[in-house]
Amino acid sequence: MGHEVNLSDFTIRCDLISETIDNKKVDGIDVETKNYKDIKVERLVIEENKSKLLNKKSGIYTTIFFNDITDYENRSNVINVVTKELKKILKNKSLLGKKVLIVGLGNELSTPDSLGPKTIQNIVVTRHLFNMKEIQVEEGYSNVSAFSPGVYAATGIESFDIIKGIVDIINPDYIIAIDALASSSIENVNKIIQITDSGIEPGSGIGNNRKELSEKLLSIPVIVIGVPTVVDAVTIVNDTISFLIKKISYNIMNIDNPKFKLINPKNYNYLDINYSLDDQERKKYLGLLGELKEYEIKELLSEVLTPIGYNFIVTPKEVDFLIDKLSIIISKSINNVLHDSINKNN
Amino acid sequence: MGHEVNLSDFTIRCDLISETIDNKKVDGIDVETKNYKDIKVERLVIEENKSKLLNKKSGIYTTIFFNDITDYENRSNVINVVTKELKKILKNKSLLGKKVLIVGLGNELSTPDSLGPKTIQNIVVTRHLFNMKEIQVEEGYSNVSAFSPGVYAATGIESFDIIKGIVDIINPDYIIAIDALASSSIENVNKIIQITDSGIEPGSGIGNNRKELSEKLLSIPVIVIGVPTVVDAVTIVNDTISFLIKKISYNIMNIDNPKFKLINPKNYNYLDINYSLDDQERKKYLGLLGELKEYEIKELLSEVLTPIGYNFIVTPKEVDFLIDKLSIIISKSINNVLHDSINKNN
Amino acid sequence: MGHEVNLSDFTIRCDLISETIDNKKVDGIDVETKNYKDIKVERLVIEENKSKLLNKKSGIYTTIFFNDITDYENRSNVINVVTKELKKILKNKSLLGKKVLIVGLGNELSTPDSLGPKTIQNIVVTRHLFNMKEIQVEEGYSNVSAFSPGVYAATGIESFDIIKGIVDIINPDYIIAIDALASSSIENVNKIIQITDSGIEPGSGIGNNRKELSEKLLSIPVIVIGVPTVVDAVTIVNDTISFLIKKISYNIMNIDNPKFKLINPKNYNYLDINYSLDDQERKKYLGLLGELKEYEIKELLSEVLTPIGYNFIVTPKEVDFLIDKLSIIISKSINNVLHDSINKNN
Amino acid sequence: MGHEVNLSDFTIRCDLISETIDNKKVDGIDVETKNYKDIKVERLVIEENKSKLLNKKSGIYTTIFFNDITDYENRSNVINVVTKELKKILKNKSLLGKKVLIVGLGNELSTPDSLGPKTIQNIVVTRHLFNMKEIQVEEGYSNVSAFSPGVYAATGIESFDIIKGIVDIINPDYIIAIDALASSSIENVNKIIQITDSGIEPGSGIGNNRKELSEKLLSIPVIVIGVPTVVDAVTIVNDTISFLIKKISYNIMNIDNPKFKLINPKNYNYLDINYSLDDQERKKYLGLLGELKEYEIKELLSEVLTPIGYNFIVTPKEVDFLIDKLSIIISKSINNVLHDSINKNN
Repeated sequence: MGHEVNLSDFTIRCDLISETIDNKKVDGIDVETKNYKDIKVERLVIEENKSKLLNKKSGIYTTIFFNDITDYENRSNVINVVTKELKKILKNKSLLGKKVLIVGLGNELSTPDSLGPKTIQNIVVTRHLFNMKEIQVEEGYSNVSAFSPGVYAATGIESFDIIKGIVDIINPDYIIAIDALASSSIENVNKIIQITDSGIEPGSGIGNNRKELSEKLLSIPVIVIGVPTVVDAVTIVNDTISFLIKKISYNIMNIDNPKFKLINPKNYNYLDINYSLDDQERKKYLGLLGELKEYEIKELLSEVLTPIGYNFIVTPKEVDFLIDKLSIIISKSINNVLHDSINKNN
Repeated sequence: MGHEVNLSDFTIRCDLISETIDNKKVDGIDVETKNYKDIKVERLVIEENKSKLLNKKSGIYTTIFFNDITDYENRSNVINVVTKELKKILKNKSLLGKKVLIVGLGNELSTPDSLGPKTIQNIVVTRHLFNMKEIQVEEGYSNVSAFSPGVYAATGIESFDIIKGIVDIINPDYIIAIDALASSSIENVNKIIQITDSGIEPGSGIGNNRKELSEKLLSIPVIVIGVPTVVDAVTIVNDTISFLIKKISYNIMNIDNPKFKLINPKNYNYLDINYSLDDQERKKYLGLLGELKEYEIKELLSEVLTPIGYNFIVTPKEVDFLIDKLSIIISKSINNVLHDSINKNN
Repeated sequence: MGHEVNLSDFTIRCDLISETIDNKKVDGIDVETKNYKDIKVERLVIEENKSKLLNKKSGIYTTIFFNDITDYENRSNVINVVTKELKKILKNKSLLGKKVLIVGLGNELSTPDSLGPKTIQNIVVTRHLFNMKEIQVEEGYSNVSAFSPGVYAATGIESFDIIKGIVDIINPDYIIAIDALASSSIENVNKIIQITDSGIEPGSGIGNNRKELSEKLLSIPVIVIGVPTVVDAVTIVNDTISFLIKKISYNIMNIDNPKFKLINPKNYNYLDINYSLDDQERKKYLGLLGELKEYEIKELLSEVLTPIGYNFIVTPKEVDFLIDKLSIIISKSINNVLHDSINKNN
Repeated sequence: MGHEVNLSDFTIRCDLISETIDNKKVDGIDVETKNYKDIKVERLVIEENKSKLLNKKSGIYTTIFFNDITDYENRSNVINVVTKELKKILKNKSLLGKKVLIVGLGNELSTPDSLGPKTIQNIVVTRHLFNMKEIQVEEGYSNVSAFSPGVYAATGIESFDIIKGIVDIINPDYIIAIDALASSSIENVNKIIQITDSGIEPGSGIGNNRKELSEKLLSIPVIVIGVPTVVDAVTIVNDTISFLIKKISYNIMNIDNPKFKLINPKNYNYLDINYSLDDQERKKYLGLLGELKEYEIKELLSEVLTPIGYNFIVTPKEVDFLIDKLSIIISKSINNVLHDSINKNN
């Protein structure tokens, strides 16, 4: 029988610019990279005319890559970098010192989706103090309000509508929104913080279409700070197939290396290999599967897992701990940027 | 030296109508009382012209008094009464079946103030289903949205402003707000549920002036469901002095009763005594303190405790358990009233 | 170059008997199956002499399979089945009415591992009442104590040692332990409850060796109620490859079926297909990968993901909700079995 | 009618040494006092022969008095003092560097009683690392395990039995227990930390008799760190009557002082007055009540409030916030003392 798997084109949903750029290797986009010890920062701008091609909204994107945040010192280093990058973005947009509404998107009752609301809890809020006639707020504090709109399924009200309602009444100069996102790469889960001025669709990370939280619709700048905290099974399998191909490449390259026979296969990192299987080899090791392009594999996996209900969206089992630390990193960074006079150790 | 304690007049702040009426014994207000086993319901209306006199907003007030809610069956009985009373109120105001926004006032991070937000978590929300074109909501469900605006000190935004913003966007027909209140009697703490259409000032229970959540300001009916969860030290002391006077009265009445000598003073309820100390006796037992009227005693105690920082607002140590049960009672009652088709055991 | 992937044998770690039996299709083990509507119950006994072969401890195993627990009625049905099965087990072992210590294993601060401690919170505990001389406990209640030993990394003390210490002091007749487990199949995550008398190694689900909580070491029967709440990436990928093979089989079988061209590939369940790729076809579609046996694929995937740190253990993003419902199901079932006189609706 | 209130003697239950000493003004006990800015430390020793007289167990008692802990810097100051005092105590008893079991007494589900379990969550536990053969624990870390036994009503097992069972198995050199206590003075609620080697009866703060956690019964030193977090209504009323008497004294002294007429009675602290009402004045202002001694007033109030169910045990409404900060103070202090090498900012 001569059936070939049927692959239609497929739009990769992807909240994170680093993954999009990585996946599509787009020409004409300058990625500026900087390293602070083992923390990497990528900055890039997507112009209006490239936006469609990439299926990403135009805007500036800053992505901070880090490894470990379980350790106090590592966390401090990440806070320093996020503080510096966020400050730079606000300064470039002339927003430093302006009135800001901080919005914590997501569901506080669902741990992997609670990053926004948890971060809000540690924001130093001052707007009410500025509104009290008897109080003279100390120099070095910005006018900050903060708020969590909840999620559509729990409130029955779209986050956009709640925020729009509040914006209309209190008139902030700009918004900073924090949200947990879906990753399209297992490497990034809980390992990057993305800051962008391109807006966000609340809940977009999990496949629901919502009104966009953006400067276009709200008429004030919207800075979004996002962290990928979940990933779907299709992505896990697809990434593993890529890793498998690299692993086979590595083994092929090293098969005659005598050292290779001495090392435990569980103990070496094969990712740095710069040889990749040729078409012939892909076919040999993976059959027709090996002949598919990455987006075709994703589409195929989606057709395998979705109809039987197993394209789970998952999160690492340490999620409680990680969300806790990530919310501390983001809230401290925001407090540092907005309030010059704050005790930085607090 | 001839100093007499200096007593200025004093406005009793009091969120609860039953306490106000009790305290002031106002003529011309009909209190309709009904008992369901050991649950008592009081209904009364304060007309516009009595409002100032009582320092209470005009409106209908229904108060449900109960004793124990630790037991599953007792809780079910309270739910049945609250359901019946809330339904009656909504029916009288022709609000049954209309679009409602449920608002959970208070601070979810502060247990005694978390009644509103905790109640919201168990409300069956349906507005988003009514908004989905592909879904036909089952007969017997109302259009319900639900929301917690947080507290001013945490958000920097007045609850009123947040709610006004949302109302302007989603246009509900009426509001049900749930809030934890301050009690001006220790007997009522966590022991009554008050339902009124007179509006509320969020945070008023704890002495802050806020914009009033009311039909007048929001142009739609506002039903408030309140439970007193905290009480201040002045109230505790004042109530204890009242009890002390009753206890002395009881002892005086029973001093020659031979049975009295046999019972442990810690084991009898003396509150039903219908004898009260005369002026002479009050002076004998309590000196000048005994000559003061109740509002004068409260003012005096306030002058004693406030300047040294000890007019604590307190809550019973079992607060976590009680708030949990009260939020279940209120959310189930609301769900029962708004959704005919709901599984009542759920 | 002629390298073939190097596959050593691999012990499948697997907490769940249904998966082991499924995987190994062992002869001589009778699996008794019963269905209650859409809930399936499997009962089997592993004799001492089969234990080694299966790498599973000898004992009786009852596994309850269910689909949805989001709905109140479905949950009630699952509770009824778990109650019935647990009662049968205790009756067979003559433990009904005896003194029991309920142990909630796992980490309450880590949502996917918090099933045990959360379940404990809703157990009706009575041992202290039996110990009070002034109280006569009502007929129909067993003597129940309940306890969460925490986890080794948080307490520095092995769960076994804590439980052994308590058992030595309070002398219960038997133990019921509740724990979250690792699944070796994505189909079972949060979808089965397993009850066994074979003991458990706390933390075994996540790869740490600990002292076994078992009748052998504690000298009293130990009934373990386990639910798989996490799964590792190797399992997700391996299961997906199996599904992929079935999907290709399905497509091959239906390629000439005219109806097939009309249906959306995302909308049909292909799992019931009873055709399976032959060796030739497996090679065509999956190359050398297709020639591997399942345990070899798992070993290969482990060698791919482990050295680069991506063999994540994950949990579905709805974990908070699911753990909540599962803990209710288990605690209500236990209460039903141990306390005849309990209000079943409570 | 000539009834006088009937006052039997009354044992003041009081967990806190500072209150006992204050109340009874015992001779022959040297109280060593030291001030660090606005933090006061009192140290005293109760010898075996004074123990009965004071109704307090013999031992050393260190009490740290502080005002505000809402501010980061104030909190740091309190941590420094608690660290210093705890270190001194352990050094004097030659316990520094020895194996310790930290026990968090109380109910984590009841906020005012959750201080112990919350503190445990932030203790740096190391015993499991010392037990791993492959790990060499860094110089400067003690061998620490930590554990919360829950409460009798929730586990059915006395805390003492659980701890005794664990001690028998893991053999620590000493215990540090943390517990929330009842205060017999409103001034001390959440305002003092008491450290003692005299042991504790878990739950004693709330009137239940339990087996004592002490060196006598466990054969190893038991250091207890306690904070009063609740107070009963009798204490609130009694303290207020004392304040009332001071206030009247103050007013009497100042009645002819022209400045007095200008100040708002709510704005001055009258506690420093060194005049006290004479018997004649007490009778004039408070009648027979004024003739009672403090312990008689407490007994009277207990007879008034207890039979009608209103001797509430209460906690300030800010309890969540305060318990959070207190648990941070205690856990950081313990970590500082036990682990020299710890990052003090962590």
